[in-house]
Amino acid sequence: MQMYDLIQKTRRREPLTEEQIQWIVRGFCSGEIPDYMMSAWLMAVCCQGLTAAETAVLTLAMRDSGECLSMAPIGGVTVDKHSTGGIGDKTTLLLAPIAAACGGFVPKMSGRGLGFTGGTIDKLESIPGFCTSLQMEEFMRITKEVGCCVIAQSGNLVPADKKMYALRNLTATVDSIPLICASIMSKKLALGADCILLDVKFGHGAFMKTPEDAEHLAAAMVEVGKRAGRQCRAVLTDMNAPLGANIGNALEVLEVIRILRGEVRNDLSRLSLTLAAHMLSLSGRGTVEACYAQAQEALDSGKALEKFAAMTAAQGGDPRITEDPALLPQAAESYTAEAPENGYISSIQSEEVGLACLELGAGRTSSSSEIDYGAGVELHAFVGDAVQKGQPLFTVHGKTQELCRKAAARILQNIRITAEQPVPAPLLYKVIS
Amino acid sequence: MQMYDLIQKTRRREPLTEEQIQWIVRGFCSGEIPDYMMSAWLMAVCCQGLTAAETAVLTLAMRDSGECLSMAPIGGVTVDKHSTGGIGDKTTLLLAPIAAACGGFVPKMSGRGLGFTGGTIDKLESIPGFCTSLQMEEFMRITKEVGCCVIAQSGNLVPADKKMYALRNLTATVDSIPLICASIMSKKLALGADCILLDVKFGHGAFMKTPEDAEHLAAAMVEVGKRAGRQCRAVLTDMNAPLGANIGNALEVLEVIRILRGEVRNDLSRLSLTLAAHMLSLSGRGTVEACYAQAQEALDSGKALEKFAAMTAAQGGDPRITEDPALLPQAAESYTAEAPENGYISSIQSEEVGLACLELGAGRTSSSSEIDYGAGVELHAFVGDAVQKGQPLFTVHGKTQELCRKAAARILQNIRITAEQPVPAPLLYKVIS
Repeated sequence: MQMYDLIQKTRRREPLTEEQIQWIVRGFCSGEIPDYMMSAWLMAVCCQGLTAAETAVLTLAMRDSGECLSMAPIGGVTVDKHSTGGIGDKTTLLLAPIAAACGGFVPKMSGRGLGFTGGTIDKLESIPGFCTSLQMEEFMRITKEVGCCVIAQSGNLVPADKKMYALRNLTATVDSIPLICASIMSKKLALGADCILLDVKFGHGAFMKTPEDAEHLAAAMVEVGKRAGRQCRAVLTDMNAPLGANIGNALEVLEVIRILRGEVRNDLSRLSLTLAAHMLSLSGRGTVEACYAQAQEALDSGKALEKFAAMTAAQGGDPRITEDPALLPQAAESYTAEAPENGYISSIQSEEVGLACLELGAGRTSSSSEIDYGAGVELHAFVGDAVQKGQPLFTVHGKTQELCRKAAARILQNIRITAEQPVPAPLLYKVIS
Repeated sequence: MQMYDLIQKTRRREPLTEEQIQWIVRGFCSGEIPDYMMSAWLMAVCCQGLTAAETAVLTLAMRDSGECLSMAPIGGVTVDKHSTGGIGDKTTLLLAPIAAACGGFVPKMSGRGLGFTGGTIDKLESIPGFCTSLQMEEFMRITKEVGCCVIAQSGNLVPADKKMYALRNLTATVDSIPLICASIMSKKLALGADCILLDVKFGHGAFMKTPEDAEHLAAAMVEVGKRAGRQCRAVLTDMNAPLGANIGNALEVLEVIRILRGEVRNDLSRLSLTLAAHMLSLSGRGTVEACYAQAQEALDSGKALEKFAAMTAAQGGDPRITEDPALLPQAAESYTAEAPENGYISSIQSEEVGLACLELGAGRTSSSSEIDYGAGVELHAFVGDAVQKGQPLFTVHGKTQELCRKAAARILQNIRITAEQPVPAPLLYKVIS
């Protein structure tokens, strides 16, 4: 087999065989196929696409490049969730304890943040003592005992994705639906959960800018999941405005605790209940509606808060944070911005809010950047709310007043206030199964 | 400037600026832009194209990567010609002495053959003693004194093309009209002739399979030539059947000598006169019709034969070959194939004839292959001819009877004989200026 011919085929939209795609993945991992050939092939994929069958074969070949876990030791139906990422997206921190409180098993591997979106692992590591690098046996044991456990991605899973992603990230071959699908699903399949719920976000603060693109990606991923024999479903959700009130690692944990304690109900709590309901339903615990009611009860009764505290304790974190959130890291300075005029908030550009938080030190500009866990933004008013001139709109937290004021100015520029109340957009746009 | 952003732009069909394209060419030549980024960009160009303005800028940036010659020492209007390559295409060997005999100056750099098409330099080197690696001063002097000189491409011209071509040849990014145009025209412009005639071939034995593709390439090249301030014109010519009677290095020189001596008139002699007429006309020597008459006179009078002998002598070759063609290398064995039935020859698949000659040893399968100068094929009947069963169709020349018979079988399979006489296709399809 010659890589030249396979590149040519993809360039000409002639489908590759299963054997040919497996050969590419193996050859690239072993170093036999040099980077300059692989990047040409990846660009051909970006421009010309892959068929659904090719995408599935690529995903499985990538999965098989490393270790594949078995969740059998957990002894129950396991459910995984993946979000394509957004600003203020801390649903994992809520839906994992909610689902666990309903009897589900959620063994979750998450990533660190890079660029304008945060990472679940960074958020959890803002909890003093919380450890996200556990041995596999420990991971299974906690999931079995508590019902949920969240750790960082292991180095042994899907080495092909690491190597391919590093090359894609240098050659402008990241935004391709078949490649994104294969990258996400190879990791989900290697982890081995029985059911997979995909939260595919669209809008300013998401990777997919339109619902149409999000739907294509969702359909591709669900197709691959089913071909691999998993229960798989996707929900398309709106990421035009940040999710919830807080953005920034410890600030997001704080918002999660407030919701788990029953102090706050908002778009974030509603979406988390919806996602938990789909996960429970996928794992055979009734209709989505019945599962939503179970999830609601788990949240309102405080059982989900207990699960969150139990998971935190099991992973070495300080469980007192659920009683005393002041134990979380806090920034030295803060600055509150006020509404410049009367009217209704018609949009909050979430990508710009994410970039402002990145400048504040709440995220990573490179994979080696240090994070300021206390930095971030608390929104006091949301899309659709009526505001009066002078009313507090949001508070920025950061190391210095200068940093806070700079971020506040950027965010203020990206909050639109209009005379007319905007028509609310539904948070859940569509379910793909 | 970041290569990532420029790859992304080309991928999204957003035009690059002049400065950005120059930066890519310089960075790739200096090694600052690694191969894996360049191959991704080249694939994006193949899939998404470049605008006419981008193609022109790329061509000039490549030209400027090395030495640029001045033809001023020749002291007259110089004319260059380029053919995109075909089976049996030895027009350079005819049109250069014809144009020189009419007072034109043809300083020509040619390539060696690789794969199924032959190279002008290999054909000339089959003449005993003929030297194609001259110093530039010698090249200019012979062109000035004789009117024509043909040498191999110099290493100092357009190093960017060498480096890019090597990468394209490994990454399936060869067949792209903007990249082919930039590769050809950067070399033509660096050579510095005042006028450039492009012979763009289409059909089985050509790189461009359809007249439409050939026209796109021709239009792109003429556009670039004009933007660079040259007199530039392209002719589209048919390469479905081999050009002329002989294919193979010394055999092609033999056919050229027969035409120059007035013994043969065929499609090759007519096309060579047409090309010479366009070259002379481009250089300001009258209308194409008037120049054709001059060229015809130069050929029929034997003046072109004298120029060919003079060029051969000036370049160290044995000029007695024009009197005694038996001095050319000859193969040890030959085999003549006969017509298997009565009818008309309706097609001779030139690519297959080229591949049969390659197997015979007349061409190179890799850049280091040795060539058997005497090997090749002499056709005795042509498309449109009536043939009787048993009549000699062609003679194969090669090292052994086995090689000859194998090639003959392959060629015979690719000559179609039909009951109906085919409608003749014009050799010259279109002129683009």
